[in-house]
Amino acid sequence: MQKQKLLVNGERLKNELETFADFGRTANNGVTRLALSEEDRLARNYFCSCCEKLGMVVKVDDMGSIYATLPGLEDKPPIVIGSHLDTVKKGGRFDGVLGVLAGLEVVRTLVDHNITPRIPITIVNVTNEEGARFEPSMMASGVLSGKFDKAEMLKKVDRDGTTFESALYASGYAGDIQNRLKEATAFLELHIEQGPILESEGLAIGVVEAVMGMVCYEIEITGESDHAGTTPMLMRKDALFDMNDFIYDIRKKLDQLDSELVYTVGRVNVKPNIHTVIPNKVIFSLEARHKDAKVLTEVERHIADQANVVIQQGNCEVKLTKMWSRDTVWFDEELVQLLEESTKILGYSYKKMISGAGHDAQFINTIAPSVMLFAPSKSGKSHCEEEETSWEECEQGANVLLESVLTLLKD
Amino acid sequence: MQKQKLLVNGERLKNELETFADFGRTANNGVTRLALSEEDRLARNYFCSCCEKLGMVVKVDDMGSIYATLPGLEDKPPIVIGSHLDTVKKGGRFDGVLGVLAGLEVVRTLVDHNITPRIPITIVNVTNEEGARFEPSMMASGVLSGKFDKAEMLKKVDRDGTTFESALYASGYAGDIQNRLKEATAFLELHIEQGPILESEGLAIGVVEAVMGMVCYEIEITGESDHAGTTPMLMRKDALFDMNDFIYDIRKKLDQLDSELVYTVGRVNVKPNIHTVIPNKVIFSLEARHKDAKVLTEVERHIADQANVVIQQGNCEVKLTKMWSRDTVWFDEELVQLLEESTKILGYSYKKMISGAGHDAQFINTIAPSVMLFAPSKSGKSHCEEEETSWEECEQGANVLLESVLTLLKD
Repeated sequence: MQKQKLLVNGERLKNELETFADFGRTANNGVTRLALSEEDRLARNYFCSCCEKLGMVVKVDDMGSIYATLPGLEDKPPIVIGSHLDTVKKGGRFDGVLGVLAGLEVVRTLVDHNITPRIPITIVNVTNEEGARFEPSMMASGVLSGKFDKAEMLKKVDRDGTTFESALYASGYAGDIQNRLKEATAFLELHIEQGPILESEGLAIGVVEAVMGMVCYEIEITGESDHAGTTPMLMRKDALFDMNDFIYDIRKKLDQLDSELVYTVGRVNVKPNIHTVIPNKVIFSLEARHKDAKVLTEVERHIADQANVVIQQGNCEVKLTKMWSRDTVWFDEELVQLLEESTKILGYSYKKMISGAGHDAQFINTIAPSVMLFAPSKSGKSHCEEEETSWEECEQGANVLLESVLTLLKD
Repeated sequence: MQKQKLLVNGERLKNELETFADFGRTANNGVTRLALSEEDRLARNYFCSCCEKLGMVVKVDDMGSIYATLPGLEDKPPIVIGSHLDTVKKGGRFDGVLGVLAGLEVVRTLVDHNITPRIPITIVNVTNEEGARFEPSMMASGVLSGKFDKAEMLKKVDRDGTTFESALYASGYAGDIQNRLKEATAFLELHIEQGPILESEGLAIGVVEAVMGMVCYEIEITGESDHAGTTPMLMRKDALFDMNDFIYDIRKKLDQLDSELVYTVGRVNVKPNIHTVIPNKVIFSLEARHKDAKVLTEVERHIADQANVVIQQGNCEVKLTKMWSRDTVWFDEELVQLLEESTKILGYSYKKMISGAGHDAQFINTIAPSVMLFAPSKSGKSHCEEEETSWEECEQGANVLLESVLTLLKD
């Protein structure tokens, strides 16, 4: 006898997403809910009360991350589902919160059907994923995984000079180091894609195999400031024109490396930045992301080569600073397969993909087998008020989580 | 019988240049003497006292420009020599002041030799040439020539909110509109080159035939801001890369137009200017200068063409704003010839050249036959503390002025 498939309550998920959007809703239907702000504190309080109503045990760790656990029949490491409740300034209604509330909806569905899970299920809200108020991003998961130093993180200050530590205590969410996530059967994070691929291909679900590795350089070109009217072209040491050649030439090379490579010059500062003065300095960023470390090594080689081309032209000096890099984080293969199978069972369209953006799961992956799934982002927009994922797509993502949890509970 | 050639007193000129550098001397031997500042007021007072000691009649016009006149035997329009005493912030010891003090030295030399000139000789200090405190530059000569509206200029404010008008009254140099320069036999302005040409060619004097015409555009390219990690290259609307192509392509075209064309992208502003975000907007300046209006017309055509190339690529929008333009100002041919002959008589090396920078003489040229001569700028530097012209070169410039005045007095 085949039972009717267990599905989440899409209407309830929608209502909770709208309720949470009220914790910091902006005039243009976005959300500003910076980490440990008053809006965040109210959202956390509401989240905790929802969990407690379900009979979950709520604990908070020393970085303020919240773990709400539905006890299981066996005393085994929990299945953890979650993401983050904080947003950037004028962010959207889905980034982060979807992963937390989908977890809540999965537990509610189990409770609705009087299912006591074989092993515990924990919903996690990881503190300060965005890094919008306190840099760096993925702060608490970074501390959890040993990537960041806790003492250093506590000293981080926001624009008003408030430290992370004092904001944490003021929020009432300074917990115990003993409550940190130590082990888990699986960590599952549903998140919006923050890119246009799923929408453009008409797909409902992205099964995320990895978070792309990246390199980011700061490139400083130094020439000489001279009068724009009186200096013949051949006697100039124009830092901006050398930057323009650098970017143009390296684009030609990078475009031939691999079609999946993405690279961006997002930040450019010109000095003195006066229309009648030849720029004596430009400082710009060049970051590149790809799953294959060899491709990123090639990118770095091209950056070094291009710097030498500029230097050998003899007009300007070039200083390269590798700001940071990260290796590609491959998620647990069995969990990737589990998500794929769950998606197939539900009949949703999907593709396996690599995340270009960073997420808490890439750090939690060092503690426990982890995986992510993506819901489509309308026009690929995120970190803005226009961020949009349809209610149906949110529901489908939560259903894949539920289906996967049910499979894990069977084992 | 050939008399010994009359020459200026180089030592005295040097001493006065050093004296004036004390009115605002900076720690690094530069000068900050903004228009109508206390330093400017003290420099003006000292200048007037020097002129009065020589028996000159000092008058001030309604924009604060000072005219010191040595009476002549005939009541004819004066020979006017001068430039400006104001500097930019952390400017040099030569820009502007050299032209005024060379005039003073010419008159002193005449007085030393008991020469009463056939026609009057006026030394002028034109107010606010630099525009460093109150924009625009060449303010008083612009009003004099009818290019700028006086009432509008009086309302211009500095960074502290002080109006030009109140600064003018506070300085004690608010004079009478009747004292404005109305006609002159000739206007002669000695100035530093502010460029590297004379030094690089080992020449002592530049005889300036014209001030180059120019066009200046602001170019705004608008694309879309997306996540640098999640947006495939082919789905981007990257305003910065479109700017990169624009600048690259137009340089190829402009470099072929004419070797004397100079063009500069001096100002670039990128939004949102975050290394992990694809820029949705770049606003940059492109200015070009050339003596031939046809060449500048070609430049404008290329700017428009290049904008269309970007638009037709379909990723970004382009908005062109012509910020300003000026036609080439050709100086009086007879005066150019006079300077050339004076330089030859003195045995100085020279070349005829076109000024890429703007000067008061380009406006005064509309009132009276005008001409300029340049002294070399070490490494082409100006508007900075490193600005340097040797004492010998200053003296040679003053001697060319003296020789030219003597010739004009003979007529």
